[in-house]
Amino acid sequence: MSHLLNSRVSLVSDAIDGELLAAGGRLARLDGYPDIRVVLRADWSRAQVAIVSGGGAGHEPAHMGFVGRGMLTAAVCGDVFASPSSEAVLAAILAVAGERGVLLIIKNYTGDRLNFGLAAERARALGVMVETVIVGDDVALPDIAQPRGIAGTLFVHKIAGAAAEAGRDLDEVASAARAAAQGTRSMGMATTTCTIPGREAENRIPEGEAELGLGIHGEPGAKRGPLGAARDMVDLLLERLVPGGAEAIGPFALLVNNLGGLSPIELAVVTEAVLTSQLASRIELVFGPALLMTSLDMKGFSLSLLPLDPERRAALLAPVDAKSWPAGARLAPLSLVPLPAQLLTEPPPSACTGASERSRSIVETTLASLIGIEDALNRLDSKVGDGDTGTTVARAAKAIGDHLDSVLRPDWGDTLLAMSRRTGQTMGGSSGVLVSIYLAATGTALNEGLGWPAALRAGFDRVAFYGGASEGDRTMLDALAPAVRALEQGGDLAAAAAAAAAGASGTAGILTTRAGRSSYVNAADLQGVQDPGAVAVATVLKSLVRTVGGA
Amino acid sequence: MSHLLNSRVSLVSDAIDGELLAAGGRLARLDGYPDIRVVLRADWSRAQVAIVSGGGAGHEPAHMGFVGRGMLTAAVCGDVFASPSSEAVLAAILAVAGERGVLLIIKNYTGDRLNFGLAAERARALGVMVETVIVGDDVALPDIAQPRGIAGTLFVHKIAGAAAEAGRDLDEVASAARAAAQGTRSMGMATTTCTIPGREAENRIPEGEAELGLGIHGEPGAKRGPLGAARDMVDLLLERLVPGGAEAIGPFALLVNNLGGLSPIELAVVTEAVLTSQLASRIELVFGPALLMTSLDMKGFSLSLLPLDPERRAALLAPVDAKSWPAGARLAPLSLVPLPAQLLTEPPPSACTGASERSRSIVETTLASLIGIEDALNRLDSKVGDGDTGTTVARAAKAIGDHLDSVLRPDWGDTLLAMSRRTGQTMGGSSGVLVSIYLAATGTALNEGLGWPAALRAGFDRVAFYGGASEGDRTMLDALAPAVRALEQGGDLAAAAAAAAAGASGTAGILTTRAGRSSYVNAADLQGVQDPGAVAVATVLKSLVRTVGGA
Repeated sequence: MSHLLNSRVSLVSDAIDGELLAAGGRLARLDGYPDIRVVLRADWSRAQVAIVSGGGAGHEPAHMGFVGRGMLTAAVCGDVFASPSSEAVLAAILAVAGERGVLLIIKNYTGDRLNFGLAAERARALGVMVETVIVGDDVALPDIAQPRGIAGTLFVHKIAGAAAEAGRDLDEVASAARAAAQGTRSMGMATTTCTIPGREAENRIPEGEAELGLGIHGEPGAKRGPLGAARDMVDLLLERLVPGGAEAIGPFALLVNNLGGLSPIELAVVTEAVLTSQLASRIELVFGPALLMTSLDMKGFSLSLLPLDPERRAALLAPVDAKSWPAGARLAPLSLVPLPAQLLTEPPPSACTGASERSRSIVETTLASLIGIEDALNRLDSKVGDGDTGTTVARAAKAIGDHLDSVLRPDWGDTLLAMSRRTGQTMGGSSGVLVSIYLAATGTALNEGLGWPAALRAGFDRVAFYGGASEGDRTMLDALAPAVRALEQGGDLAAAAAAAAAGASGTAGILTTRAGRSSYVNAADLQGVQDPGAVAVATVLKSLVRTVGGA
Repeated sequence: MSHLLNSRVSLVSDAIDGELLAAGGRLARLDGYPDIRVVLRADWSRAQVAIVSGGGAGHEPAHMGFVGRGMLTAAVCGDVFASPSSEAVLAAILAVAGERGVLLIIKNYTGDRLNFGLAAERARALGVMVETVIVGDDVALPDIAQPRGIAGTLFVHKIAGAAAEAGRDLDEVASAARAAAQGTRSMGMATTTCTIPGREAENRIPEGEAELGLGIHGEPGAKRGPLGAARDMVDLLLERLVPGGAEAIGPFALLVNNLGGLSPIELAVVTEAVLTSQLASRIELVFGPALLMTSLDMKGFSLSLLPLDPERRAALLAPVDAKSWPAGARLAPLSLVPLPAQLLTEPPPSACTGASERSRSIVETTLASLIGIEDALNRLDSKVGDGDTGTTVARAAKAIGDHLDSVLRPDWGDTLLAMSRRTGQTMGGSSGVLVSIYLAATGTALNEGLGWPAALRAGFDRVAFYGGASEGDRTMLDALAPAVRALEQGGDLAAAAAAAAAGASGTAGILTTRAGRSSYVNAADLQGVQDPGAVAVATVLKSLVRTVGGA
């Protein structure tokens, strides 16, 4: 077993009931399990022409996902890739038929044609007005007598559903549907076939290749070849889908269908390729990309085109109450918004004067002290991390030092914010971001008028929040926390520096942590090794004591 | 290459543009490619609190599929499975921030926390009001310090979006979002991991097994084991998702998420299992099943639960203009509609009297003639088909003969309709359905008052239409068509029989066909062999000449 199901026998019934329950009473089904699996609108009043479609299962959300006001009245479900019986189709017809009659929309497969056909004849014999339209939109095999019905069938559902909802007569609904069926062209492409529950996975398409024009039951396609760039693959498909090129066709609606297992990001790439292709100028409406007419888990997509006229345009855009029909969009140029000006603007140089010589000296000395412990920090980190903390810190210190004129501001709040920007740009890894967060939060707090202890606490809180670590997790917080506490309790800078140094020393004895770099390291390897981040913090404070003094 | 993309470098940008173009101008993006990939509402007026989320790509439709009125204001996209930079997040914040402020919704991964966090600090430094909420809804690994954020994040988006759309202040929006993040529980299960573009497919989960609680980047889960019935797998997951069972929790909302590559029919089966599980009585709202927060092409699903109160219920059901948010449904019992009465009712026995002895004799003789050629038809079919046409025809003839009292009616129209029903029920294969269609269409036409030639023509047309074959395709139509033409031209039954016999004989010389059983057979094997279906038709007409006479 490689599929999520209860049993192959109950597969289709279970799936229908799952979607029915999730539809919250909007849909109903005939009480005919296991043989008769018919989903219908719960709000159906028989006042309009009823639209019935269906076919084998394995194409979900087709067809029950398209049952609802403005689209299908009922969907008849067969087994996986097998037509429903004529009895089931007849049950659907009789369940929804009113005086306006019923239109059957049939995908062009022998089993579906015959069973829907027989049901239509039996219903007519019972006095029901029935019309049928057969959809064969797959143009992959141009010489075939009976082209297959694939995702373009959904255009026919939509056109017919809108006409019925508009109150048209059966003849008019059928004629609009037939014209749409006639005009719809579709083709698929995939990099895998589908895996049928209970059967071995088939690997007809080798890794690295793609198949063009394969069927929604995994039937072999028109051509197989290497999988190239999405843009080229789309062009290959479009050449066959619209042999005459863009000039050959008027404005049309496009439907972009996920064949089941293609990742949404790839389908979006395919969509971009189609909507910027040579054909783009003729695409007026886009439906999807979405899961619409799938082939179980097939990794592939199909494109369907329907030429537009005013009536079809309105019908395709008419509102529906069907879960899986995607709202259509009018193709429009990309809407680009300029980047916010503030993002690009460093404060102007004129704002960068006025910092005192004393500030400059304090910062320069501190940066030098950090550069001076590069090797020591690297040695510590080589025991508990990847050995580059010293280099990372030194590089950031140098980057700030190299731009000191633009970093130093008249007040410390702005200076820390400027340092935060430089750090964020130059200091890699998580630690760079954390230092940058610390500087920004502290600087902002100073600018908001908070004193140093409160501002440093604000920085501490942010680093703990975003970093996900707490005091005791063997991080820079273990030096920072006691230092901030010392200041909050009225201690001077020397007291704070002493507390930081003690905190950094203490990390050598912390052997189990839940967060931070050391959470990946064995206790035995941590024993006796101070955390390099905490040491860096203690170094900064020690340097500040020397330059600022105990103020 | 096994993925549909143009290049790994442009993958995310291409995908965003694909969805943007297909959004028809409803969405815009910042003009910051390749570094800054931010999608935002095109209709955003900055009058409300802005909701910003995002993260690594590969989770589509998350997050850009949820941008729209009532949900996200902007989504920031990183590379596949990699956080966006703080610069990109800051750009998003600045692009949408108004006086009401911005809420950042962050999935709980280190990279996202740090980059969104730094962006928040930088924005605050610029005077923007920013609040953040971190979502860690994955309960698969209960002992972990930092639970991962997965599909339940979408509940938080929806709750926050509704609060913002309702005009609430930033504090209120943030507080509603935090409470929702706190209350949301999610867990996933999959039968494959995901295939990352440019990397070899990983096969951590052996065929026939499933993994419980794996991450949306393919991170290993809590447990691996054999893949059992969907119902059992769902129960296994629910036991961990709601350890206390149904009694432990109040009414909640359920989100059923396709992790990317699971076939929709399987996800529907999973949905059925959840919605009929022990927990079902506590499920009030259902969202999905749908592609919501995927992991590229992973074959799996996740379930998310959010306890409900009146405010959350209203927020979850509030309208949105975001492509990928599924309309929620209130869980309701299955709505079952009785089978149509007409389907079950054969015409009552009282209607089955009045057929003349002559009619009975005609039918009995004709059936006997068909039974008499069983071996001959089988021999013909063994050369051009699977050798059972004679047996199939004889079985149907016997089935009609055994129920002759209920088949024979006062007039031929009803008699043919009754025969059609018997044939449809007893004669297998395509030919059984086609004969049934023929009898039904002809009988209905007779009942509508058409004469025999026109009625037989009506039957012929239907068989050709549904069967997809024409005269000359080596089918029963090759005997039927000349017979009907003979009658239409005023010939008698003998003339029709002679034409049918000539037509049947002629099939021995038809060597290429586009439809029907013989289209699969080599010309050399067809040479000199009459089509058994055509021979059967000629046999019926020959028998009728004897019993009905040349009238």
